This record gives sequence, C-alpha cells and structure tokens, in this order.
Amino acid sequence: MSELRQDFTTREWVIIAPERAKRSNPLISRKEKKALPEWDENCPFCPGNENRTPSELFRIEDSQSSWRIRVVPNQYPALAPEGSTTRKVEEGFFKRIEGMGVHEVIIESPLHNATLAQLDVAQVEQILYTYRARYNNLKPLPFVRFISIFKNQGETAGTSMEHPHSQLIATPIAPPYIRRKLDIALQYYDDTDTCLYCDLFQHELRVGRRVAMETDDFLVFHPYASRSPFETWIVPKKHQASFGLVADAELTGLAKVLKNTLLQLHKLLNNPDLNCVICTSPTEDEYNHYYDWHMMIIPRLTTPAGFEMGSGIHINATVPEETADLVRGVRL
Amino acid sequence: MSELRQDFTTREWVIIAPERAKRSNPLISRKEKKALPEWDENCPFCPGNENRTPSELFRIEDSQSSWRIRVVPNQYPALAPEGSTTRKVEEGFFKRIEGMGVHEVIIESPLHNATLAQLDVAQVEQILYTYRARYNNLKPLPFVRFISIFKNQGETAGTSMEHPHSQLIATPIAPPYIRRKLDIALQYYDDTDTCLYCDLFQHELRVGRRVAMETDDFLVFHPYASRSPFETWIVPKKHQASFGLVADAELTGLAKVLKNTLLQLHKLLNNPDLNCVICTSPTEDEYNHYYDWHMMIIPRLTTPAGFEMGSGIHINATVPEETADLVRGVRL
Repeated sequence: MSELRQDFTTREWVIIAPERAKRSNPLISRKEKKALPEWDENCPFCPGNENRTPSELFRIEDSQSSWRIRVVPNQYPALAPEGSTTRKVEEGFFKRIEGMGVHEVIIESPLHNATLAQLDVAQVEQILYTYRARYNNLKPLPFVRFISIFKNQGETAGTSMEHPHSQLIATPIAPPYIRRKLDIALQYYDDTDTCLYCDLFQHELRVGRRVAMETDDFLVFHPYASRSPFETWIVPKKHQASFGLVADAELTGLAKVLKNTLLQLHKLLNNPDLNCVICTSPTEDEYNHYYDWHMMIIPRLTTPAGFEMGSGIHINATVPEETADLVRGVRL
Repeated sequence: MSELRQDFTTREWVIIAPERAKRSNPLISRKEKKALPEWDENCPFCPGNENRTPSELFRIEDSQSSWRIRVVPNQYPALAPEGSTTRKVEEGFFKRIEGMGVHEVIIESPLHNATLAQLDVAQVEQILYTYRARYNNLKPLPFVRFISIFKNQGETAGTSMEHPHSQLIATPIAPPYIRRKLDIALQYYDDTDTCLYCDLFQHELRVGRRVAMETDDFLVFHPYASRSPFETWIVPKKHQASFGLVADAELTGLAKVLKNTLLQLHKLLNNPDLNCVICTSPTEDEYNHYYDWHMMIIPRLTTPAGFEMGSGIHINATVPEETADLVRGVRL
C-alpha cells in the first residue's frame, strides 16, 4: 500500500508508491551513454577555444595545462547586470521587472569528458572554492537578492552543453518559493527556539535509516518525503544559513562527500543524468538562525507529469529508506 | 533584454528571456514520431484486450464497435480506496497518511493511434462528459478532498502507455499548492469583492494580445507569466469554481475549443508531447466566489532544470504575446 508523507520543510505531501515501480523500475534499463572524447574542437569550453566564450571573469591556473577552472558570463544570459529593478505595472494590471541580474558559467575542468563523480577530490574542492568565490563576489551587488548555484548534467537534466559545467544565477528578487520555506522555518523557530533544518538533520542522524553517508562535518541522506527516486541531500552538521559562509576546512570535507555521493549514484544508476542545486538563504539574510544551506542532488530517473503540475504532489515509486540502503551498499 | 514577470495567481516570478531561444529554438527540430498502428495486440487498452485491465468502472457504448470510452482503475495505483486518512506521527517526528484515494484511467478511444487533436468533436465531448461523470461520482466519497484530472501525451510528458488515455487521481488532502492559490484568490476577493480569476480573464479579453481563441463561453490565452513556451489556458467566461459544475451545453463548447486548441498546437509544433491538466477547487469548496476552474495545456518543449528546482523561478525563452500570435495564425 502506498502512503502520503509530508515534507517537513515545505508542508507539501509526496505519494510514496513502491507498487508503481513494477510499471517502470527506475533502477533498470538506464540507457548507455556515448563515450565522449577528452577534447572536442567544436566545444567553446575546451582548451584552445577560450576566445569563443565571453570574456573570462575568474580562473584557477594550473601548472601543467593553462587552467583548471574558468568562469565566464553565460553567452545567452537569462539575466544581465544592466537596467533597473524597479517594479513596473504593465497594462495597468501585471507586475514586471527588467531582467537585471547575473548569469555565469563555471567550466569545471579542461577535460571535455570529465564528470564530477570521477574528478579527483582536489579538483572538486577547487570547483566548490570557485562557487563560494563567485557567490561572495556577487552578493554585495546592490541589485542582488538571491544567488542560485546549480548543475545540470545530461540531456534529460536540461543541459545543452556536454562539457562539464555549473551555472550561477543571481536574481533581483528573493523568490517566493524560498520565502515560503523561510516563513515555515521562522514560524518553527519562534515556536521552538531551534532551527527546523538543524532539528531535521539531527533527527535523520539519530534514526539513521535514510542516511547514506556521514563525516565529521556533513551528513548525506534521502529525505523522508523524497519527491523522486534517490533524491539526496548533503547538509552541514553545524548551523549555517548561507553557502557563502562555508569555511575553507569545510570545503575540503564537502568536496570529499560530494564526490563520493556522486560516485555512488554513478555506479549504482549507471551515470544518471542529474541536477545538483545549492539551496541557500537570500543574500541579505545570511546570518539567520532558522535556515541551513544544503545541497540537493536529483537524479533524473522519472518525469514529473500532469498530476504533479496540477497538484504540486509528487509521486515517487521508491522508498527513501530502501534507496539509502542501496546507496550505502555501493563500494567506492 | 529579458524581464521578470509576476504570475498574478501564484505571485511567483518567471524570467522571459527570448535571447535564449538562439541557444535552442523550441519551434524547430522537433523529433518526428513513429507512426502507430490503429490496433496493437499487446496493448491492454485496445479492443479485444478488455480482460487485461482491472474491472471496468464506466463505459460509453458505441453502435458500431463495442465501446467508445472505458474507465478502469489504474493497474498500478498511486492511491487506492482502502485504509484510513488519519494523520499519523512517524518516528515521533514526521506526518504521514495511508495512501487512501482513487486512481482511474480514462481510455479515450478504441483506436490505439488516436490523438485528442484529431478525434472528432463529438468524441472529445464524450471524453469531457466522462471526466465530469467520474468527478461527480467520486466527489461525495467521505475521504476525497481534491480531484485531479490530467493527460500525459508522449514519452517526454511522462506517459508509459501509447494508447490515448487520461487519468484521474482523487486525494485525501487538499494539496498545499492549491490552498496557496486559493489563499491568494481569497485575499483578493476580500480586498476587491471580485474573483481574481474572473478579473484576470476579463483583462486578457480586453487586452487581446495573448488571446489564442475566443468563443461564446470560453477564452483561450497564453498567460502573461507563462512558465514554458506555448503554455495555454482554456477558461470559462462566466464564474465557475468547479469543473464538476460545468453544464451539458458548456461541455459541447469546451470540446470544440479543446480540440481546436490541441489541433493548432499539433500543426504548429509537429504533434508535441504535452500535459493537459484540469485545475479545479477542492471538492468541499465547489461553490466559492473567488476561484475559477480552468484547463492548462503545457507542451513539453523544454526541460525545467536545476535553477527551477532551487528557486521556483522558471525561465521561458519565448514571449507569450508572440506565441499567441503564432497560434492565431494557424489555419484549422
């Protein structure tokens, strides 16, 4: 029998329906991917084609090749740092803002065929270091209210470029979706004098059934109300509202945990397409006591469809306690 | 330059970024689909295989073949009409409900290769009649709080069956996502003494730029803050909070509008995969004065990715005024 589980952070419900895995099992029949070359002459992110990207914003040098990581503006930006953030009334009815913001691309490696799961930990650490550097570089800008750092890996995860990269979008608004999560957390804080996210993470640690990995500083678990199979959260053990505040020593630990988590999913699910998102507080609210930044990894094994669109309820054909158990069994 | 537009019904923002269409144009390079046979011996929804579905719940007879439409329980139901809707505390921390509800499949035609866009209007009307009949049959059940009727057409829209069908899921909760939309509409009602949805639809009619079609009873438009290319709403011109209350005469008009809208999208976008969802009030709230039921059609031309997941903000590379204009130009 299926069940509805309530997400502790959003109050949304998820239907956990393992019987539906008989219909199409997310664990089997994953498509083989074509092998990519180390270098592709047509790829603007490959070494030698640096002049085919907009002017570089940031670089980590390498002693052997010319660079390890580059950051460039997105060539087709969703938002750009020009215009005004004044709210305007349109047609006497609607509200609009000019598309002011920042949209950057983090090129994660000179290798066209690298994946985060298979890069060495030192390189993953440099990528995380770059995320934090760009985040902290942009957050003082007067028009920035929120910064989203994310990675789309594979075609079904929405990427148009093969070369390994992440993106950063700084928006001139704190998204209502984020405000709602913060409202719920703030109410909880006022009621309990504790952080909802810290309490949730402590609960997961104590119960252990959904824990995939644990280190001194980080916890990896599959949420009780996972919206899709193998939804994975990487969370700090100590309270920290913003990714921009992560210390150097923590970045090292996070790199190890992230790489190993992605490697487990890579091995178990045959290099799945996936999205990886850093959820963090709005830039003006980085020292709050009621929200913890965290990383969400969503393998794209199933497709949200009409029911999800019309109700906001997701149907998940796997049980998080069982997927966490499968992941724990993967040898690294 | 791009812009942020606020959805009038949810207060979420959407980034309208037409420059990004240069990156991948949703109008071109749609994949050709393989032609399907009229009958497939392996399809449980095809005539002759009626014994391969769970026992039939409803049927519309046909004078020539044995049936025109059948409704059967979903063989792999997300929810089933057994158990209890008592909220239970799990692990002393989380909230859960047994998976009590209803999950039905509406088989829309005996023809394996039919599409709603190409069926005759009389058949589409019978399908809508069946939707309403099943809706009204289920709404008195004591555990039902909300009924979602939806259609997933094509693999990228999340369907696992080729044979044309829709689905109905009755849930034991009013989804928080729906409650939020109702809260916004109720606040507006208290402020203005008018229905937010009626006002929105009247505005679209008056402005006309985003209108794709208009009949005596219905309006079809592309919302100001469309989340994806060619997002299309079909809405009643007079206030009506629930799809269960649609009158027979209105069903006829709705069938014509729905068929023609789908046919326009079929011709313009080369038979796109799409989701179709009926948004309606919770079953206990069918006579409210602040919400209008409506139909949402979402062609699956792009893939929501990490940014959408982490921020709730969608990026749309098309401009609704322009897509509505393209649709208006399609000859039927």
